[in-house]
Amino acid sequence: MTDNAVEFNGQTITKGDLLYEGKAKQVFATSDPAILWMHYMDQVTALNGKVKEEYAGKGQLNSNISNRLFTYLASKGVTHHWLGSVSATDELVKKVDIIPLEVVTRNYTAGHFVSRFGVEPMQKLTPRVQELYYKSDELDDPFMNQSQAISLGFASEADLKTIFALADEVNELLVALFEQIDITLIDYKLEFGRLADGQIILADELSPDNMRLVDQKTGKSLDKDVFRQKQGDLRVGYQDVLERLEDVLK
Amino acid sequence: MTDNAVEFNGQTITKGDLLYEGKAKQVFATSDPAILWMHYMDQVTALNGKVKEEYAGKGQLNSNISNRLFTYLASKGVTHHWLGSVSATDELVKKVDIIPLEVVTRNYTAGHFVSRFGVEPMQKLTPRVQELYYKSDELDDPFMNQSQAISLGFASEADLKTIFALADEVNELLVALFEQIDITLIDYKLEFGRLADGQIILADELSPDNMRLVDQKTGKSLDKDVFRQKQGDLRVGYQDVLERLEDVLK
Repeated sequence: MTDNAVEFNGQTITKGDLLYEGKAKQVFATSDPAILWMHYMDQVTALNGKVKEEYAGKGQLNSNISNRLFTYLASKGVTHHWLGSVSATDELVKKVDIIPLEVVTRNYTAGHFVSRFGVEPMQKLTPRVQELYYKSDELDDPFMNQSQAISLGFASEADLKTIFALADEVNELLVALFEQIDITLIDYKLEFGRLADGQIILADELSPDNMRLVDQKTGKSLDKDVFRQKQGDLRVGYQDVLERLEDVLK
Repeated sequence: MTDNAVEFNGQTITKGDLLYEGKAKQVFATSDPAILWMHYMDQVTALNGKVKEEYAGKGQLNSNISNRLFTYLASKGVTHHWLGSVSATDELVKKVDIIPLEVVTRNYTAGHFVSRFGVEPMQKLTPRVQELYYKSDELDDPFMNQSQAISLGFASEADLKTIFALADEVNELLVALFEQIDITLIDYKLEFGRLADGQIILADELSPDNMRLVDQKTGKSLDKDVFRQKQGDLRVGYQDVLERLEDVLK
């Protein structure tokens, strides 16, 4: 097998055209129309891409963390797009039509939520807060509500019910997992996609690029906030998260 | 009776202390703890108070329009806070605890919605969009969703269900009324309050200060957009709206 082909479920999957390049991932077509090839980049961005840097090995850390989290969620019954790893930075995923909404769950106050509503950071939110953002680089991913998403045709009321129920299921599982490794899951982004048969499943990635994770002992950030706030090398925290996950998910 | 006292339901109501001064209204206590005295000011503001002007008679127009709309809604079974007029600019209202949320209904795209989501103005929204804003001058009335409002303790899930159902009831009635007088109700803000017994009712005012109204024949704005966009004397449009309402609500 070359770098561009892999055996998967008894067939050879060949990497095809680049379909999409995001801020931290590339997505390629493959020889199987139901399968995509996802590559994790070392690039890190902030402020919607206005700040950009390379961290060698970051893509590998994220791919590894994401795959472990997807595998954990699958073991608890959550349906997602991850099929298997091709290399340290590349994976095969089910082709879905991505729903153009980011679903943010907040267990504690942080970031925009703090400035928007004038509240203190790191306050527990009871119940957790769920938010939607319209995926649009051009518009800076604007915050939106369900009524807007429905009226603009991004999702039906039933779709949103499914998505928020899935997000709650994932949240309960992830909070419990991170709790076991002394990490508080502050907030994070999920994305969902639709399979050809219409089923909505968890997609995208699950990594410290898209989560706020705080070490319960030191209070330190173990996520992209380290980069956003210029607090040093973000890979230290990512590596720490990975090692703790490896310990608990053996 | 002086300017500060009025006969109401067989009792004398006396105006008391100023409780609150908003951008276009003053609210006073009265001798009856269940009744407030509301005064419509001639002041018009834009950009959250950063632009300010006086238009003699504007308060009177708004009071008149608001009272007619509340009376119309009451005739259709909508419960609200308006009790009766004291003068051309003053009215008595039921004392409620105002829920600190603005409820915006959008029947057509306009204003912030257009820039936020990159859509064309004056497009019909099907279904109508409902939005919440947190009433906070300091924070510039931030847009919020139901999950945030619940978690921050502004309203329960049941309260929001009641509020949005009332907003839909009001919307259907107002759209139909304005349709009769060749006006398109683009979008508008409602506020709700809680009576001492917990019942949630419509409060605040219903006027072109808080609505976008477009003349179906000329396409011209008949609301505060005339002021926001420096298109002349906003009272011309307000007077037109009042006269058409007088015609149809005889």
